Amino acid sequence: MNDNPATPDRATGGTNRRHRTPAPNEWPTSLTRIAPNEIEIRGYPVDELMGRLTFSEGIYLLLRGELPTPSIGKLFTAVLLSSLDHGVTPPSTLAARHVASSGSPLSSAVAAGVLALGTYHGGDIEDVMRCLREGISLHHAGMPYEDAAKQLLEKHCRVRPTPPGFGHRIHARDPRAARLLQLAHEFELDGEHCRLLRVVERVLNSMPGRAQHPLPLNIDGAIAAVCGDLGFGPEIGNGLFIISRVPGLLAHAVEEKVRQTPMRRIDRDEAYYDGPARRRLPETRK
Amino acid sequence: MNDNPATPDRATGGTNRRHRTPAPNEWPTSLTRIAPNEIEIRGYPVDELMGRLTFSEGIYLLLRGELPTPSIGKLFTAVLLSSLDHGVTPPSTLAARHVASSGSPLSSAVAAGVLALGTYHGGDIEDVMRCLREGISLHHAGMPYEDAAKQLLEKHCRVRPTPPGFGHRIHARDPRAARLLQLAHEFELDGEHCRLLRVVERVLNSMPGRAQHPLPLNIDGAIAAVCGDLGFGPEIGNGLFIISRVPGLLAHAVEEKVRQTPMRRIDRDEAYYDGPARRRLPETRK
Amino acid sequence: MNDNPATPDRATGGTNRRHRTPAPNEWPTSLTRIAPNEIEIRGYPVDELMGRLTFSEGIYLLLRGELPTPSIGKLFTAVLLSSLDHGVTPPSTLAARHVASSGSPLSSAVAAGVLALGTYHGGDIEDVMRCLREGISLHHAGMPYEDAAKQLLEKHCRVRPTPPGFGHRIHARDPRAARLLQLAHEFELDGEHCRLLRVVERVLNSMPGRAQHPLPLNIDGAIAAVCGDLGFGPEIGNGLFIISRVPGLLAHAVEEKVRQTPMRRIDRDEAYYDGPARRRLPETRK
Amino acid sequence: MNDNPATPDRATGGTNRRHRTPAPNEWPTSLTRIAPNEIEIRGYPVDELMGRLTFSEGIYLLLRGELPTPSIGKLFTAVLLSSLDHGVTPPSTLAARHVASSGSPLSSAVAAGVLALGTYHGGDIEDVMRCLREGISLHHAGMPYEDAAKQLLEKHCRVRPTPPGFGHRIHARDPRAARLLQLAHEFELDGEHCRLLRVVERVLNSMPGRAQHPLPLNIDGAIAAVCGDLGFGPEIGNGLFIISRVPGLLAHAVEEKVRQTPMRRIDRDEAYYDGPARRRLPETRK
Repeated sequence: MNDNPATPDRATGGTNRRHRTPAPNEWPTSLTRIAPNEIEIRGYPVDELMGRLTFSEGIYLLLRGELPTPSIGKLFTAVLLSSLDHGVTPPSTLAARHVASSGSPLSSAVAAGVLALGTYHGGDIEDVMRCLREGISLHHAGMPYEDAAKQLLEKHCRVRPTPPGFGHRIHARDPRAARLLQLAHEFELDGEHCRLLRVVERVLNSMPGRAQHPLPLNIDGAIAAVCGDLGFGPEIGNGLFIISRVPGLLAHAVEEKVRQTPMRRIDRDEAYYDGPARRRLPETRK
Repeated sequence: MNDNPATPDRATGGTNRRHRTPAPNEWPTSLTRIAPNEIEIRGYPVDELMGRLTFSEGIYLLLRGELPTPSIGKLFTAVLLSSLDHGVTPPSTLAARHVASSGSPLSSAVAAGVLALGTYHGGDIEDVMRCLREGISLHHAGMPYEDAAKQLLEKHCRVRPTPPGFGHRIHARDPRAARLLQLAHEFELDGEHCRLLRVVERVLNSMPGRAQHPLPLNIDGAIAAVCGDLGFGPEIGNGLFIISRVPGLLAHAVEEKVRQTPMRRIDRDEAYYDGPARRRLPETRK
Repeated sequence: MNDNPATPDRATGGTNRRHRTPAPNEWPTSLTRIAPNEIEIRGYPVDELMGRLTFSEGIYLLLRGELPTPSIGKLFTAVLLSSLDHGVTPPSTLAARHVASSGSPLSSAVAAGVLALGTYHGGDIEDVMRCLREGISLHHAGMPYEDAAKQLLEKHCRVRPTPPGFGHRIHARDPRAARLLQLAHEFELDGEHCRLLRVVERVLNSMPGRAQHPLPLNIDGAIAAVCGDLGFGPEIGNGLFIISRVPGLLAHAVEEKVRQTPMRRIDRDEAYYDGPARRRLPETRK
Repeated sequence: MNDNPATPDRATGGTNRRHRTPAPNEWPTSLTRIAPNEIEIRGYPVDELMGRLTFSEGIYLLLRGELPTPSIGKLFTAVLLSSLDHGVTPPSTLAARHVASSGSPLSSAVAAGVLALGTYHGGDIEDVMRCLREGISLHHAGMPYEDAAKQLLEKHCRVRPTPPGFGHRIHARDPRAARLLQLAHEFELDGEHCRLLRVVERVLNSMPGRAQHPLPLNIDGAIAAVCGDLGFGPEIGNGLFIISRVPGLLAHAVEEKVRQTPMRRIDRDEAYYDGPARRRLPETRK
């Protein structure tokens, strides 16, 4: 590992210089302090975290600045697990596989996959977060949730056929979305974002014509509501999906390199699953 | 989320078609099975994993095909935590910040950061893994570890001044490397890779002139040995570093967008840490 | 070069199937026809183009579908030359250099540089194009250019301090912008976009307070106006800047790898130019 | 355009400081000098180049440091034109289209395409250059071309089935390769690299069994030989292919966004060409 400058640098200084105005050109960072033989993430030595935190607790700490409570840690873990992989169909997976197929390194394949996490693919989290925030403001100003939901839907249905956070071309009932909201409820961590999202879902699907063609809540919507209630802001929303999906992109890139010949034609309709059959978790995991 | 094809596809087929020869153009994948309302990672429904596995256990399952034992899960968690972030100095962080500074989306910033995880930056894991494998083969063929270590070092010291897995420009003693090997030992998961690496370290630092300028084991070396003993192959080695560092890249990209003005001059020597002062984990975490 | 499928494919079919409705899943492309031993760009065999077109004429043909006239070809060449490189200061250059410094391949370095061509860096071309289109519509509906310019400026000055296409932190007079508009005029290819842009510039700089702090037209603005008059649409605007700058990104990545040590600290303020002193083109080139 | 630092910087200094040893941390760059209102590429003001050079002459100047002669300029133009686009089949094109299809910006799509220009796709140029250099050294040391060619082939045929620079899965005779070598000959710019490559081709295809299955010279091989004779080194070889292909990647990304629906299934076998039928250049272009 070469996380290291060629020259000693001020960021490695041992002094904690909080709460002061930066000099011209100076810039503050509150993530990680580096000094010879010392790496502190948000103040905690990383070697103390190792063996004591889960990976998602470490991610939460890095992104938010404080350790999660145990139940927040568990819920955030479920958020990151939810989008770990989605098989060969997403454009991100196929972009990563095409790059891997050309002989480029794993880092190039993963990067290309991340670049496909665009507006139509993982990009709804931020939009749903902003949308729910707006609705919560309306509610705080005295509007019933039902009316706030209607107003949001009207606004969004004017710009696009389905509102952000709803609809999935494969799943009529996204199993991840349902499970995530259920866990938030079990951990008593669902708040206004989750509540409003459920109202939006109900209002949306009671609209004329929707009874026959219901639009299910999707995982983007569920992540947005749950993470909104956990205090994450929209500016980081899509980033949670990136963290969650990177292992999947990597797994596909490695599988492409190991099991396939380079420069092959890649048609997702020609893929078939040959992994383990459906199985249940062992009792000890429940 | 739109992990979804415009058309129904064969990969979504419910049949498990293992152990057969693919037809021309067909291609097998053993990672994830997708069917309407069903997402199974290595056979486990993802909604069952949510709430029951940690994120790193899920990543391990996806990459390796089976659930880790509890102690393997904990050790693998420590691997992923070890490289979560390294402050503002690495080129990957600075590449991500420059892209974030130009107004591009988070996905572009993270991708640019991942692209900087090259030969000199996280790229040693694969090399060390191959190197240790070679030494273990020599040992199995009858050579004492000490001699195998000497042979490996001779070979590598001819091509580059420091062998892969050793040396760090900031840290004289990489706190992450020491902690990771210690945890592997505590969990009784250290095997031939860890043993050989320790011998290599000893032989290297007893070479003439090294007493004054010891070359410490770095985190790349430690990850390579520990993950080698866990059964990971070199073809995935650098990928573990990518997964570990992506949250750090994201955190820097978000911080750049939130705290700084666009298109600014970014000099890592002008950065200073203004986050929380050094602190210890609460007792409940120990 | 391996621009080649593992299997024969329909796209290589020799038949030209224009003007028909694609079957389900079928998709049309009008860029390049490939058949064994045949590569036709927009209908022209690429081996006939070689030796007969300039590179920018070939790019124009590919992007627009028809050959440019000689004067359009020359003006478009000037567009592409204008942004070839801008030294070490842009974030795109620094992102490319950080990736090159980490030992990743040239393709990774160039890709990282391209990712930094964001909203604040080359991203104004599209905005200026849309803005000028809007103003031209107003003019066609009867509004004098002057009033249209005022209306556009009011709208944009409300959202950001400087309107897109104006202002440069280094150049008080962007030499590229002036030259590009002059060439468009010499070739008699300046039309409504250029005319409106000049009016906008005049109106903007006669606003109260601007006499002391004039906002010069920048190269983004000039490219947008000139290419708008050439018939390019906003959907491709920023792409022209990408094509123009890629050689510069590559040159910096190569220079970083050849002249510098890996993983060094890169501070743009520490760079100095040591190339040829200012010189004039030979007479034969004028 | 915002190619600009937030603060004045030393790289913008007007003094030309050649031929001196950089102070610690200082770094020299010989590409472009930037000063207020001045942009000089290799000493030439960019606004003087505009209207006087072709785009490929400008690229040549930037990469090599000096202006090409007119015939070198024309040959280099042909090099860049040769790989402008290759339809929908290459993995780079498909990676760019998948990213464009997900709603990410053009820069992300182009970057993903560039990342697929790996070992098996445009990555042969560097290898062929190194290989030809080696053969030329052997020749200079007294070995006939024929024997040098045999020695190179033996070495390479041991590692991979086809030597770099030969073979194409679609084209039995790559029209670009033949045309490029012909142009080099017409301009009297073919030297030792071209000569040796032709000998290698002859030796290779007179090997036992090759009469029935000849391996044609491909465009990578031809670019490597021609650019080797022009004095380009292997360290920049693959970069020439990147510059050449970026406009093609961009054209596909734009076409995907303009003509297709987001998140569609993309199978290259379902593509058909619906552009202009085969046509000849007008007489004035010959």
